[in-house]
Amino acid sequence: MAGLRAIVCFSGGMDSTTLLYEALAQNYTVETLTFDYNQRHRIELESVQIIAARLGLPHKILKIDLTQIGGSALTDLKIEVPVQAEQGQEITVVPLRNTLFCTLAAAYGETQAIDEIFYGPVKEDFEVYRDCRRPFFDSLEESLSLGSSYERAVKIHTPWADKTKAEVLRRGFELGVPYNLTHTCYLGMRPACGKCGSCRARLAAFAEIGLRDPLPYQTMVADRD
Amino acid sequence: MAGLRAIVCFSGGMDSTTLLYEALAQNYTVETLTFDYNQRHRIELESVQIIAARLGLPHKILKIDLTQIGGSALTDLKIEVPVQAEQGQEITVVPLRNTLFCTLAAAYGETQAIDEIFYGPVKEDFEVYRDCRRPFFDSLEESLSLGSSYERAVKIHTPWADKTKAEVLRRGFELGVPYNLTHTCYLGMRPACGKCGSCRARLAAFAEIGLRDPLPYQTMVADRD
Repeated sequence: MAGLRAIVCFSGGMDSTTLLYEALAQNYTVETLTFDYNQRHRIELESVQIIAARLGLPHKILKIDLTQIGGSALTDLKIEVPVQAEQGQEITVVPLRNTLFCTLAAAYGETQAIDEIFYGPVKEDFEVYRDCRRPFFDSLEESLSLGSSYERAVKIHTPWADKTKAEVLRRGFELGVPYNLTHTCYLGMRPACGKCGSCRARLAAFAEIGLRDPLPYQTMVADRD
Repeated sequence: MAGLRAIVCFSGGMDSTTLLYEALAQNYTVETLTFDYNQRHRIELESVQIIAARLGLPHKILKIDLTQIGGSALTDLKIEVPVQAEQGQEITVVPLRNTLFCTLAAAYGETQAIDEIFYGPVKEDFEVYRDCRRPFFDSLEESLSLGSSYERAVKIHTPWADKTKAEVLRRGFELGVPYNLTHTCYLGMRPACGKCGSCRARLAAFAEIGLRDPLPYQTMVADRD
């Protein structure tokens, strides 16, 4: 029997692809929603289309050009993406990105009568991105419910918020997630650069659970298996 | 002495133009921010540019195409704008528009180190638009503060939230607001249609304070002075 309808915010990366498989495993009737925010790594939009098509799921791409706001290496080509382990990732923060994306998901959901949203921050994201914390999502759920055109309870599911990337990956292998089809590299490289913060976090998670990342990389990376 | 910096969300309409003059009267150092959401009445963007230039204020136009979400007569040309007094205005609701706009203002503010936002809903807006109520803005202030990249207290000033359109207008005349330069008509007509909900509310406010609206209209309207 078909379950509740849900919108899964889906970037094509390893965390949100696992999220998508998790929502399906929980028997939600899923639509995927992806944001084309003119991100440097727009190549991830290809992964989205391939994975959604493989699962036969409706998918919608919403364009919102965040280069207009700037302030982040992910949306401003003049700011370099940090590729050294000792560099902080603060410069990759896109101001209020999760707030914007969850709000757009809830707005789109309003037109489709869908109140359930899945969003994929993981435990490690907290360190750099304040809008990945559960108290933030609790507050946003309230704002979105109060702000909608009719009385509704918007629910933002963040099953990975208290899980490490390695734990998410372990769950993903149980669920049969095709990690070879996902995209992670902040530089948008394919093969992936293996050096940016995003690639390094991915490789570290695979190393932690002792499995090989099926994705091709530019160079062999020290901490890779 | 220059006051605190603030972003005024400015549509070129009568309420937000009065809001802009109010923020200046309160000695804020103002930047105006306008949303080009592919609204049917995009002609209001001309008013914005004329008024901001006249005041010598920095102004930024952010594009976010809400026709992608749809669900409203203001963003879906297939849905007609109601022009009969007995018709409800519910169909002009753009899902979570204020949430999106305040979030974009706060995100842009984050890159400019501005935490004060002025937003212009009036008392009558409550009836149709749930995201014009102060409890909603209180909740959103909390969400935006929790979600920003660094600790900050985002403040959304809504000085008109407990004032009727007529009261706002009365204040605007004290402040010398050039109402002849503002735009109101939902149909985007110039001269204004005088029939849509937005025109009718404007004309009713002028009638209530016994002043003539300096804007040209297509036809003489019954309740116009």
